[in-house]
Amino acid sequence: MKKLTVLKIGGKVIDDVNHLNKVLKAFAGIPQPKILVHGGGSLASKMAKQLGLKPKMIEGRRITDHESLEVVTMVYAGLINKKIVATLQAAGCNALGLSGADANVIQAEKRHPEPIDYGFVGDITEINTSQLINFLANGLTPVLSAINHDGIGQLLNTNADTMAARIAVALSQDYEVELILAFEKPGVLDHENMLIHKIDFATFEKLKSEGVIIDGMIPKLTNAYYALQLGVKEVKLTSADYITDPEGIPFTRIVESL
Amino acid sequence: MKKLTVLKIGGKVIDDVNHLNKVLKAFAGIPQPKILVHGGGSLASKMAKQLGLKPKMIEGRRITDHESLEVVTMVYAGLINKKIVATLQAAGCNALGLSGADANVIQAEKRHPEPIDYGFVGDITEINTSQLINFLANGLTPVLSAINHDGIGQLLNTNADTMAARIAVALSQDYEVELILAFEKPGVLDHENMLIHKIDFATFEKLKSEGVIIDGMIPKLTNAYYALQLGVKEVKLTSADYITDPEGIPFTRIVESL
Repeated sequence: MKKLTVLKIGGKVIDDVNHLNKVLKAFAGIPQPKILVHGGGSLASKMAKQLGLKPKMIEGRRITDHESLEVVTMVYAGLINKKIVATLQAAGCNALGLSGADANVIQAEKRHPEPIDYGFVGDITEINTSQLINFLANGLTPVLSAINHDGIGQLLNTNADTMAARIAVALSQDYEVELILAFEKPGVLDHENMLIHKIDFATFEKLKSEGVIIDGMIPKLTNAYYALQLGVKEVKLTSADYITDPEGIPFTRIVESL
Repeated sequence: MKKLTVLKIGGKVIDDVNHLNKVLKAFAGIPQPKILVHGGGSLASKMAKQLGLKPKMIEGRRITDHESLEVVTMVYAGLINKKIVATLQAAGCNALGLSGADANVIQAEKRHPEPIDYGFVGDITEINTSQLINFLANGLTPVLSAINHDGIGQLLNTNADTMAARIAVALSQDYEVELILAFEKPGVLDHENMLIHKIDFATFEKLKSEGVIIDGMIPKLTNAYYALQLGVKEVKLTSADYITDPEGIPFTRIVESL
């Protein structure tokens, strides 16, 4: 089967234009078909603040109200997505910026308002695999912001890690998929903040119960195992720099068992 | 040859969600291949104001500085484009939101800074006709915001009427193109504010010299004649409502001679 790389980037690399350009230039150079999924960095929060919006939190979780949805749609699907696409084009990569609504590539449904109403947050219900394959077959590189739609006119905000994992799984019938979830750290860290080069599900469960793997790392690893168990060939957690030097930059390989 | 409709909408219809939805629903129902080009309405100015940016004007013309470019990219290519795409998808039209950077469909070059430096404003240099035809042949309806790129990483703001006219011309080799430039008025108006049902170039020149056709109507009509002279089959200036009832809503037909 043909290889396909699905790279998710987010956080500080999006905010730092020089770093981002370096990563995108390396991504553009990947010879096989590839897909980029991006988050929004801190720009959406900064923009919301500048517009005088106060983040709405319930039980420590951010709620996407109507105004927040407009801000993330502007920032993720507009500013960041188009800057990334223009930068990739300049590096010779025929990028095509997409939200889930575009060509109906990803449908989601608004999360049930019980027990917590997260607002305009969507859980993915369907990935239009044939459309994505069609774009790839035409030499295009989809660049997806994590804004999806429900098919009846409503845009919805989705977690970008989850979206990358779902896309990787959907395409694993047709490609040998490598999923790279890049973030601020070099990978999964142990008790002593040392990189774990290979982590299996049992170790993940153990480190979670010991409080070593906490907060945002739990859903990130859950997405990683989900992808691995449903047919994605290789799953890596690493820094965005990995893409600039896959032989030299350390990473954590996600495995089912050691 | 197959028919193709290129519709440009902008101004107040973008700001009024109910009106916009009605127009988009009608657009979605057009059976032949179609392309939508949209402006931004008043939202970009409103957003710039909310962000504390002051419009920069030189000799009465708006200058697109770095901050303004970010705002129009967010608002046009993000918020408005994705809302339109989600609405068209809900109406059964397989819309694909694009900036000129996406799939490299439109390249522009930054306008020469002499005599006036307009900032990040781009004049179109190349339209990727084969890519647009490819999207159309795959049943997709391109929805273009007037943000283009220069191919070396810079996004540029372009006039949406000009963009629609250029796209119509580029596709007129392969399609029998109808170009509809929709705006706030029912069409071109005469001395007594009555609709002119058919206007030829000589009448346009005459009304321009008499000060009847002024301001934004001059470039709009210039674009219309440009399109007509370069192979576009039909060019109409009308209100956005035209699309909801082409038999009933009045319009101005642009003709070379009466």
